[in-house]
Amino acid sequence: MQRLFTLIFLFVCAQSFGQSPQQSQLKSWTEEYWQHGLNLLTEIVKMPNDAVYTEQIETNIQWCEQQFESRDWSYERLSTGGIPILLAQKINPNANTTILFYFHIDGQAVDRSQWDQPDPYIPVLKEKDESGYWKTIDFQRLQSEYNPEWRVFARSTSDDKGPFAMFLTAWDVLREKENLPDYSVKVILDFEEEQGSPNLPDAVVKYKDKLAADLMLIMDGPRHSSNLPTLTFGARGIAQMTLTTFGPKLPQHSGHYGNYAPNPALLLSQLLASMKDEDGQVSIPGYYEGIELSEQEKVILAAVPDNDEAIQKRLGIGRTDQVGNTYQESIQYPSLNIRGMRSAWVGPEARTIVPATALAEVDIRLVPESDPERLFSLIRKHIEDQGFHIVESDPSDEERLQYPKIVKLESKISYQAFRTPLDSYAGDWLRSAMNRAFGQEPIQIRISGGSIPISPFVDALKIPAVTIPTVNADNNQHSPNENIRLGNYREGIQTILSVLTEPSNK
Amino acid sequence: MQRLFTLIFLFVCAQSFGQSPQQSQLKSWTEEYWQHGLNLLTEIVKMPNDAVYTEQIETNIQWCEQQFESRDWSYERLSTGGIPILLAQKINPNANTTILFYFHIDGQAVDRSQWDQPDPYIPVLKEKDESGYWKTIDFQRLQSEYNPEWRVFARSTSDDKGPFAMFLTAWDVLREKENLPDYSVKVILDFEEEQGSPNLPDAVVKYKDKLAADLMLIMDGPRHSSNLPTLTFGARGIAQMTLTTFGPKLPQHSGHYGNYAPNPALLLSQLLASMKDEDGQVSIPGYYEGIELSEQEKVILAAVPDNDEAIQKRLGIGRTDQVGNTYQESIQYPSLNIRGMRSAWVGPEARTIVPATALAEVDIRLVPESDPERLFSLIRKHIEDQGFHIVESDPSDEERLQYPKIVKLESKISYQAFRTPLDSYAGDWLRSAMNRAFGQEPIQIRISGGSIPISPFVDALKIPAVTIPTVNADNNQHSPNENIRLGNYREGIQTILSVLTEPSNK
Repeated sequence: MQRLFTLIFLFVCAQSFGQSPQQSQLKSWTEEYWQHGLNLLTEIVKMPNDAVYTEQIETNIQWCEQQFESRDWSYERLSTGGIPILLAQKINPNANTTILFYFHIDGQAVDRSQWDQPDPYIPVLKEKDESGYWKTIDFQRLQSEYNPEWRVFARSTSDDKGPFAMFLTAWDVLREKENLPDYSVKVILDFEEEQGSPNLPDAVVKYKDKLAADLMLIMDGPRHSSNLPTLTFGARGIAQMTLTTFGPKLPQHSGHYGNYAPNPALLLSQLLASMKDEDGQVSIPGYYEGIELSEQEKVILAAVPDNDEAIQKRLGIGRTDQVGNTYQESIQYPSLNIRGMRSAWVGPEARTIVPATALAEVDIRLVPESDPERLFSLIRKHIEDQGFHIVESDPSDEERLQYPKIVKLESKISYQAFRTPLDSYAGDWLRSAMNRAFGQEPIQIRISGGSIPISPFVDALKIPAVTIPTVNADNNQHSPNENIRLGNYREGIQTILSVLTEPSNK
Repeated sequence: MQRLFTLIFLFVCAQSFGQSPQQSQLKSWTEEYWQHGLNLLTEIVKMPNDAVYTEQIETNIQWCEQQFESRDWSYERLSTGGIPILLAQKINPNANTTILFYFHIDGQAVDRSQWDQPDPYIPVLKEKDESGYWKTIDFQRLQSEYNPEWRVFARSTSDDKGPFAMFLTAWDVLREKENLPDYSVKVILDFEEEQGSPNLPDAVVKYKDKLAADLMLIMDGPRHSSNLPTLTFGARGIAQMTLTTFGPKLPQHSGHYGNYAPNPALLLSQLLASMKDEDGQVSIPGYYEGIELSEQEKVILAAVPDNDEAIQKRLGIGRTDQVGNTYQESIQYPSLNIRGMRSAWVGPEARTIVPATALAEVDIRLVPESDPERLFSLIRKHIEDQGFHIVESDPSDEERLQYPKIVKLESKISYQAFRTPLDSYAGDWLRSAMNRAFGQEPIQIRISGGSIPISPFVDALKIPAVTIPTVNADNNQHSPNENIRLGNYREGIQTILSVLTEPSNK
């Protein structure tokens, strides 16, 4: 009896979902078209794309325009203070839902001498031999063979031209199979992402109406290190501060003034030590305020198949900061990280002096609960509570004599965090698509530890945003020998197929 | 009646002191001979004396030998591993007391482009004009004029050829006046002092018998900043340590691992902060053990006319470390000074990482009570009490995983302190000479804050040693435009005259 109900339920679902192709269908389409996709990938990565050189980028923009043109999309360049953004659209007149896909087409600079291939922009296919060395093989072998572990090496294969080539491939499949999305699609292409997308936030505000959508999908970044299908629902933001403490106006002889002139490196150490406890938890009152992980959220975080022991072994650390109980829990909180420190000279240059200044660079990863203005006001209060007078530029002679302890505080908020709830409509919708593609729940990352420069974009549009990473985590992104694993390229196409065929009106 | 007793007392004193010339006599001899002394100074500084160039030093040695030869002294080169030491002697067959004078003849390297004169080895006479600029004047003016504020500019005028030229001058006066010392005189000339006297400690041990004396007088360094006649009874020693803390094996992305991978700069800050309190006092138990300043000693320290307010204004510090109540008291204690600190990158090079290491350079000024071995053992125990595992080289993978907190400690003892008691026979004897020369008590420095490389010499000979500084404190020692003030040159001759005429057997 129960079985009958189940069958009826599945039938009803299938009806209401329209013609959603199932896993086996998506897989066979992918197998059929992926070599077409590989040709697209080969073609796109051959164009150098370092955004420092605008002429390189112009070639890339024209290529992208040509792709949309040939697929009967409308497109336009949105001018910014720098390199334009390309907005392409395929409006479905029957739809009242629009989904915006984000890709970036520029890539990191290349140091040709560091690559194990003649040209970082001429892709090569490689296979790992028994000794673990990546050996070039002929692309021709793909005519008769397929090994998911083989990889294509070239700049931007993973970051981020690969995902765009997957998208074009998936679109071509669905056009030929007459299974195009039941919603309108917008694609935004960023050509300055590796420069920190400096013109994006202003452009988003300026072109808010054109970019309007119900959901934004960020098609960038690597999957979870397990390489299983992944959805990432947010990214931490980032702010910085520089703290400088002051000793004597000029470095002084440590014999004459050691025990007399206050040492700025000691002052800085005392100040930094006062900010965090032995377990690496920030001890500034209120710093973690507003962050409560429910039991349900802890279950979601615990479901991520991290291997904490393996991470610690790889990093060579005998303990971890105790901000959260696990790696995933730890990144749900804002950080306060000393990323650099300097006072006078060390090593062979060390001199017997009391230094004049000591400086610490601190970065703060933000979560949605931690408004950076609030954090900085807590930090300022804490610093003052330690007896410091805060200045914004180097202290005058009068200030030096007036205040026993002085610190210069310079701060900058780069961009805030974003996080889309897992239990939102967007979350349900994407999980449904991924389940259909792979027959299993995706790994769900509540928020990623790192920050991405497109979060101002997300914040400005005020729509839910989710990252769909597809590439392998060991892709050497930002480094020489960037690559994409063939298995990831194929599964990436399959992922996008599932998203494009997910009914919007279920 | 009282007046009569006083007269008898003075008569008796004069008898028992032999023919000691009084202040007015010393002054008139100095006025008579100081231009002869200036010729000697001019001659000696004209010889370049950078000990990096042994041929330069050879010229200086030969000149010195010639000076002793012409004055009927015996002399010999004592070979060392490097440049020889010159020992000269004038034995008084009737004396059973020997006094050893130390000078060094080598000088700091010169950067000719930084000097306000054509050649740092060709002395020029200068007068300060109304705008505070040092203007060259003709040496000829000294035939008819004398201004104590005029200065001779050339390398080593103050450090340390000037004092040796004063000594030769004083000797010539007393030879002509038939008032040579009633004790035997030894002179040791060091030609590698600015290189840290690397061969001196071994040489002293080797030639201990030849160098034997009852008192050593170190004729080097500047007077107290008040420029009043000064005696310095000791110098702090020096030891160093380098502390390195460890985070992840390689720098890690601060987004991915901030809040998870322990930060080595925080660890270092916590460790350093644990070593000293808010007032700059070392909080390691036992660090100041054995140092007790008696009320009498505090009176002596308080008698030094330091202007703490002026020092603080010059250094631009609104408070001082509270190790002692005054500047002089503060240097009676060992220091623990962070002289340099480094972790990853700062400024434009700053990167969003958790650094792999953090490093602090620390110097420790020693006093006689603070055996450096004992201090290092206290520091080690303190570090271990903070939960650190101490290693001597970079930790292995196994150590990294085994110990939650690791610090690498490298230490070196350069040389120890020396201090001759003020209330010793040597102290009484020198105060008597200085009183006779200037009609007032000299400033007495119990120990100088800085360290001097000849303290191993003092330690090896195991005789009392006192420094008799004569030159002006603002002589630009070790810098371009080194100079000596004419008033100091003349008073320096007068000082040495008083010492050479002080009876040894009173």
